[in-house]
Amino acid sequence: MKKYDVVVIGGSAAGIPAAITARRHYPEKSIVIIRKEEKVPIPCGIPYVFGTVMSNDKNLIPDSALSSNGIDLIVAEATSLDCAAKTIKLADGETVSYDKLILTTGSTPFVPPIPGADKPGVFSVKKDVVYLDSMLKYLDSVKNVVVVGGGFIGVEFADELRKRGLNVTIVEMLDYCLMLALEEGYCKEAEDKIKSLGVNILTNVKLMEILGNGKVTGVRLSNGVSIDADLVLLSVGVRPNITLAQQADIQTEKNGIVVDSHMRTNDESIFACGDCTAKKSFFTGRDSPLKLASIATMEARVAGANLFRIRREQTGVIGVFSTIIDNQVFGVAGLSEKEAQDFGYDVACGEIEQPNRHPGGMPGMVLLKVKLIFNKSNGELIGGSVRGGDSAGESINTISACIQKKMTADEIAMFQLGTHPAVTASPIAYQLVNAAELAIKAMS
Amino acid sequence: MKKYDVVVIGGSAAGIPAAITARRHYPEKSIVIIRKEEKVPIPCGIPYVFGTVMSNDKNLIPDSALSSNGIDLIVAEATSLDCAAKTIKLADGETVSYDKLILTTGSTPFVPPIPGADKPGVFSVKKDVVYLDSMLKYLDSVKNVVVVGGGFIGVEFADELRKRGLNVTIVEMLDYCLMLALEEGYCKEAEDKIKSLGVNILTNVKLMEILGNGKVTGVRLSNGVSIDADLVLLSVGVRPNITLAQQADIQTEKNGIVVDSHMRTNDESIFACGDCTAKKSFFTGRDSPLKLASIATMEARVAGANLFRIRREQTGVIGVFSTIIDNQVFGVAGLSEKEAQDFGYDVACGEIEQPNRHPGGMPGMVLLKVKLIFNKSNGELIGGSVRGGDSAGESINTISACIQKKMTADEIAMFQLGTHPAVTASPIAYQLVNAAELAIKAMS
Repeated sequence: MKKYDVVVIGGSAAGIPAAITARRHYPEKSIVIIRKEEKVPIPCGIPYVFGTVMSNDKNLIPDSALSSNGIDLIVAEATSLDCAAKTIKLADGETVSYDKLILTTGSTPFVPPIPGADKPGVFSVKKDVVYLDSMLKYLDSVKNVVVVGGGFIGVEFADELRKRGLNVTIVEMLDYCLMLALEEGYCKEAEDKIKSLGVNILTNVKLMEILGNGKVTGVRLSNGVSIDADLVLLSVGVRPNITLAQQADIQTEKNGIVVDSHMRTNDESIFACGDCTAKKSFFTGRDSPLKLASIATMEARVAGANLFRIRREQTGVIGVFSTIIDNQVFGVAGLSEKEAQDFGYDVACGEIEQPNRHPGGMPGMVLLKVKLIFNKSNGELIGGSVRGGDSAGESINTISACIQKKMTADEIAMFQLGTHPAVTASPIAYQLVNAAELAIKAMS
Repeated sequence: MKKYDVVVIGGSAAGIPAAITARRHYPEKSIVIIRKEEKVPIPCGIPYVFGTVMSNDKNLIPDSALSSNGIDLIVAEATSLDCAAKTIKLADGETVSYDKLILTTGSTPFVPPIPGADKPGVFSVKKDVVYLDSMLKYLDSVKNVVVVGGGFIGVEFADELRKRGLNVTIVEMLDYCLMLALEEGYCKEAEDKIKSLGVNILTNVKLMEILGNGKVTGVRLSNGVSIDADLVLLSVGVRPNITLAQQADIQTEKNGIVVDSHMRTNDESIFACGDCTAKKSFFTGRDSPLKLASIATMEARVAGANLFRIRREQTGVIGVFSTIIDNQVFGVAGLSEKEAQDFGYDVACGEIEQPNRHPGGMPGMVLLKVKLIFNKSNGELIGGSVRGGDSAGESINTISACIQKKMTADEIAMFQLGTHPAVTASPIAYQLVNAAELAIKAMS
């Protein structure tokens, strides 16, 4: 039997920072990651393997961060967990004991119960290099692709597959692609961009059946239309991997393993983080369906720090995303105007679009649009959206900082910012500040 | 006599947002800007006229924001102010009365008392289009330029004049260029970049004399060396324009008009903001020498909102800058490690450099370096630096948000961030978070 002070099961966006954080806070402890995969793909990078990076081996989380932090690695599947004995059984027969355990068992793509979903040529976005390599290979003989689900991953895959010269169609149940993430105006813009790149988009329509004798040849939709397809990619959400936890009688619910605000399960020695855990909203305290790598890393830094003494408390998930379509970044943090209103907030919004350079004739100028959503009752920022050039990917993090520290519209109007002609708007036109000023005007 | 509810004297980075903020908060008031310049250059854009934008007329603050906000404009010099009568005399003989007055009289480049400083061919960075046009014209017959002062403006000018094919030498009194702004490691890197572009740099040396019979032919330095120069550009700081205020017995000090935290002078009806005012540090409460357009706009949004009822209080200047040299952005916010130590803080720092894409093979990858400086006694962030691609210009604003809301190292370690393969580091490698984690490690 191998003995460790800290065992982390899983080695992706949650497992690695959990182990590294444990190392930083508890330098004297022995730490091991147990994971079943030989190689671990960078989860957010997976779509970009297919049209930009072109190889799964160029999209791996390097193991060097483990060895340089004195973290052992066991590549094996953990098949059972004994909470009383504090041991884990591995598929190869080995047993590993722990003092503290962190579960980061992740999630699995949801495969809807649709006729034909098991045909060769049907893929989902599994975080598994061998599987993704098989999809890359399958693409060699493909012309027509149907992507089911127009969320971030679906849209990013569609864009990348289009770059390979394929004929791509997105099938989306809702009114617009990206509708669960972006503000309505922003998802319309994003959808127009995707269409302009040559991707076909069918909205308000459901997948009913995957067609083909043997391998996939098409799909049948709820509006009666059938489309040719040599490959169908399902990207309709994920389900948490909670079997190991359930079998060990650790408390779980539909969205994952139940953890407290310190990322501890109902077993005092066992923490959990990442896609396998259930989450609460920063804003409402209610269940949140969000599953993001960035949330996983945040939770991991809480779990890793809290193992032997409670140091950190997380305050619920905000949800900060960004994506890029045709050189335009779309980012969102916190609640959309509609989500905020639906929850019952009285909101005031400000939105402005200005060049991201000053003067506007500086090279590389594109427009940056910013929308901010405030809770009228206390003036605090509860959501924001951006659409602009590359640097909008960092702008959304400035907005996230303001949300996390509950900055008010007046505080943002007095934001102390740095600007430069070649990389930002002018201080007079700075979007964040002016959006706050416009929201204040809307409040009065 | 013309009568206005609100008069703003000056129409640049402070005057315009002061007037617009007044309009947003007091829609019923009549507002006028009185400025002496026909055209107002974008102050931070001035260096970029000389090698990139190539025309002062393409670097103007547009007057359209005034007309669209119902703000009148009088182009005339304000020659005197009568606080008792609440009137302003203009150079054209007109008198304008006010209920509330905002002084944004700005600053003037400091011209050191050196022999030859009045020769034709000696320029400073006056925010005056006619003057800047004369410098542009003078450059047509110039080969060798000496830039005196290696601060941001000096370095940016040197880089732009080099782009015109000129032979440029920076003369700097201190050990390195940019030493008053950037952390030592960062200003060394910046200086190396400027040198690699072909700009000559002489440090630890003072300008003693400007040579030439009639027009400039060279400079003599404190180390005895003389250098040929057809044009000398002085960029050795600015002095606040306070004559109008002084003559009206408004309280001033060396660094400018004295204002309270609401940007009000000792006269209840008169506010002041921008380069003409004295400033206090956010960190120390002591006098701050900072004069930045971004500070001017922040102060303007305080002054404009407070005119008829006190709505906003500013908490002292943080100082957030960025510049770009050879496609590398250098940014800084708050205190440097040395400034913090010199003031007496016990500091803990964390610094990390990682790709700004994930995986690193994504197009456009450059390294982003982030350094964070924390006050060990309470864990709060008091300074930060970045060096990276274009988006580092927004990264420094995320750091500024964290400073403004006094985020602790642990809070930053739990930062809820958005990441994307094409525009940021991975959530595991995200620089801001990891720099905080390393600082925490340094604290324990």
